[in-house]
Amino acid sequence: MNETLYAHANEIARRAIAAVLPDEAVRRALAGRAFPGGVFLVAAGKAAWRMADAAVSCLPPLAGGVVITKDGHARGPIPGCECFEAGHPVPDARGFAATRRALSLVSGLAPEDTVVFLLSGGGSALFELPLIPGEELQRITAHLLASGADIGEINTVRKRLSAVKGGRFALRCRPARVLSILLSDVLGDAPDRIASGPAYPDPTTCADALRVCARYGLRLSDEARACLAQETPKALDRVETRVEGSVSALCRAAGEAARALGYTPVFLTDRLCCQAREAGSFLASILRSHAGGGDSLAFIAGGETVVRVTGRGLGGRNQELTLAAAEGIAGLPGAAVFSVGSDGTDGPTDAAGGYADGDTVPALAAAGLSIRDALADNDAYHALSRVGGLIVTGPTGTNVNDVAVALLRKEGCR
Amino acid sequence: MNETLYAHANEIARRAIAAVLPDEAVRRALAGRAFPGGVFLVAAGKAAWRMADAAVSCLPPLAGGVVITKDGHARGPIPGCECFEAGHPVPDARGFAATRRALSLVSGLAPEDTVVFLLSGGGSALFELPLIPGEELQRITAHLLASGADIGEINTVRKRLSAVKGGRFALRCRPARVLSILLSDVLGDAPDRIASGPAYPDPTTCADALRVCARYGLRLSDEARACLAQETPKALDRVETRVEGSVSALCRAAGEAARALGYTPVFLTDRLCCQAREAGSFLASILRSHAGGGDSLAFIAGGETVVRVTGRGLGGRNQELTLAAAEGIAGLPGAAVFSVGSDGTDGPTDAAGGYADGDTVPALAAAGLSIRDALADNDAYHALSRVGGLIVTGPTGTNVNDVAVALLRKEGCR
Repeated sequence: MNETLYAHANEIARRAIAAVLPDEAVRRALAGRAFPGGVFLVAAGKAAWRMADAAVSCLPPLAGGVVITKDGHARGPIPGCECFEAGHPVPDARGFAATRRALSLVSGLAPEDTVVFLLSGGGSALFELPLIPGEELQRITAHLLASGADIGEINTVRKRLSAVKGGRFALRCRPARVLSILLSDVLGDAPDRIASGPAYPDPTTCADALRVCARYGLRLSDEARACLAQETPKALDRVETRVEGSVSALCRAAGEAARALGYTPVFLTDRLCCQAREAGSFLASILRSHAGGGDSLAFIAGGETVVRVTGRGLGGRNQELTLAAAEGIAGLPGAAVFSVGSDGTDGPTDAAGGYADGDTVPALAAAGLSIRDALADNDAYHALSRVGGLIVTGPTGTNVNDVAVALLRKEGCR
Repeated sequence: MNETLYAHANEIARRAIAAVLPDEAVRRALAGRAFPGGVFLVAAGKAAWRMADAAVSCLPPLAGGVVITKDGHARGPIPGCECFEAGHPVPDARGFAATRRALSLVSGLAPEDTVVFLLSGGGSALFELPLIPGEELQRITAHLLASGADIGEINTVRKRLSAVKGGRFALRCRPARVLSILLSDVLGDAPDRIASGPAYPDPTTCADALRVCARYGLRLSDEARACLAQETPKALDRVETRVEGSVSALCRAAGEAARALGYTPVFLTDRLCCQAREAGSFLASILRSHAGGGDSLAFIAGGETVVRVTGRGLGGRNQELTLAAAEGIAGLPGAAVFSVGSDGTDGPTDAAGGYADGDTVPALAAAGLSIRDALADNDAYHALSRVGGLIVTGPTGTNVNDVAVALLRKEGCR
């Protein structure tokens, strides 16, 4: 292994993730703000506790607060807040009750009051109050998924079956101001798509929802049909939205960290969504084509790749991307590829992601391992761990997708 | 469809291919050379006739010449040359006889003589004289393919079973000089891999070949075993090798053509080898991330992608890449992706490749077509042809892999 490149990979990963931690995101968004009236806090999502904890340290004493996070994610009391844990990824009655508590908190506020609304990944399940019985909601979701509807189509229908999604939470906060601070786990950071946009105007319409129902032959109860006739808000005044932590920020910070280490960053994308192993192959082919060019380069691709699981091995999308890249840069001096999940847990493993350089394939061969076999079994974790190719950060408390970086050190720098 | 972008795509494709036509490649390589003795010409490959035709117009009258090309690719007599057509991709007795004729042509030359050796894609099948019976050679190839051996492993064995591959043709030309002009259809342009390098030192060894046989349980006749014990040349003096037409040149010319149209070219790779549809997705994600950045950009990725055929539709790898990209840039103004094969025939179609822009998905929808269905059936040709998304050049006479270009016009340029 190239120890210098491995150290650089870890340093870039560490700094990139540090820039998108919930605490940082919240502090940036609240810096220098004044609050004329009462401040009410509602936080939902996997990072809700950390965002809320950071917010109270910057805000005047709260008039009230509701924090809803995933089981095991609340770390203690927060001054002025009630903290709830609830089911994720499948919403449950505890989440519904906590969401009802939040709605009651923001009822009857004054125009000079502010609702600070902190939203992060997982908020779609954790911040929910369905307008129809949970069983029908589950049946509708299952039917649409089984029919091949995409997530946009599913959410177009589901928004209308919820008391809080599609901008409806912001309506309930009126006449108070809403300051919405988002940690985005959605590529492109469209605020209407992050947790189905509880405080953001909904670009989809009742007609869109009915079209989806017709396309996939969805049968609805009278109750659900009535909900689909209720339009969501198309504009919301007195709402300010700040997307603070996101994969774009993760990529930007990775680029800055790479620059500080002597690389020229080349930003490719923050919308990566293809198959993990193919992205790894593409990045490797970029490195191989630029090798020997006399520059130290860092190609940056953020997003969220996908893995088609056909094997029974252990791994995550970042490790699979890395292992596929290893094959393409085998023997190439000064080249490395790494990829990490900003949440610090790549798939069901204790690693944030993987690292490979030109020495990885020879090292695997010496250990009697083949990349082809490992990929066929989706077993990147065991292959990479045998050659020291894991990047381990521990859970980070944030979740803004992944970043992959392809490094090329010019000759003489090795 | 964005007519401007479509015109740009066609213009860039046309100029890129023009730069790697066999005629151009040969003229560049022969310009300004002197030939003290007799000039003998041997040309093999799909572009052999065109390369030879161009060569005789730059060379002194030939002392003799042999041209071996694929059926239907010889277009008439060439002064001083015997022209042969032979089987491709499966070598046949006509090819063997023509190769024997070439060997006899280069026998007994003088040190001041020159063999101008013109090699292009397809040369591996067309320029061949096996040292064992054809049936055993076919059995060996079939066994290795079925056992999962890769092309490098197969060629390591096959070079030793051939009278001309692995540098052996150059040995037969001694003591004459050899000027080898290559049109490369191999990513990375390694001359030992282009048609198994008849005039280039062989980096593989007898021991490598025996390891491949052992790994895949290959049984050999005594005759074949004796061949595997014969080492190929590891160095060749009096041989000059020029890789003139290649995917690198194709990419470079695409970049220059894009620059002339006002784009800043961004060279990504000339080694692309991942799945076609995933490469399309990656390129689309790059465009989406750079949209609105205020620059006109042309991202260039050359190589040869692969298609996993699971459907029964019509298409080629370039069209499949393009159609997958269409999904990722749907609705994005000023963005387009195109991909073409330099040979002008993408898969079993009459198109060189495909073109898609932000209007492609709406146009497909209006025609009642879905990208997902078309990709599932590997039917990019019919989908793209319905929306005017084909690029048609006709057969070009060259073959140096493919180039994909992702275009982004800055706003106000549309």
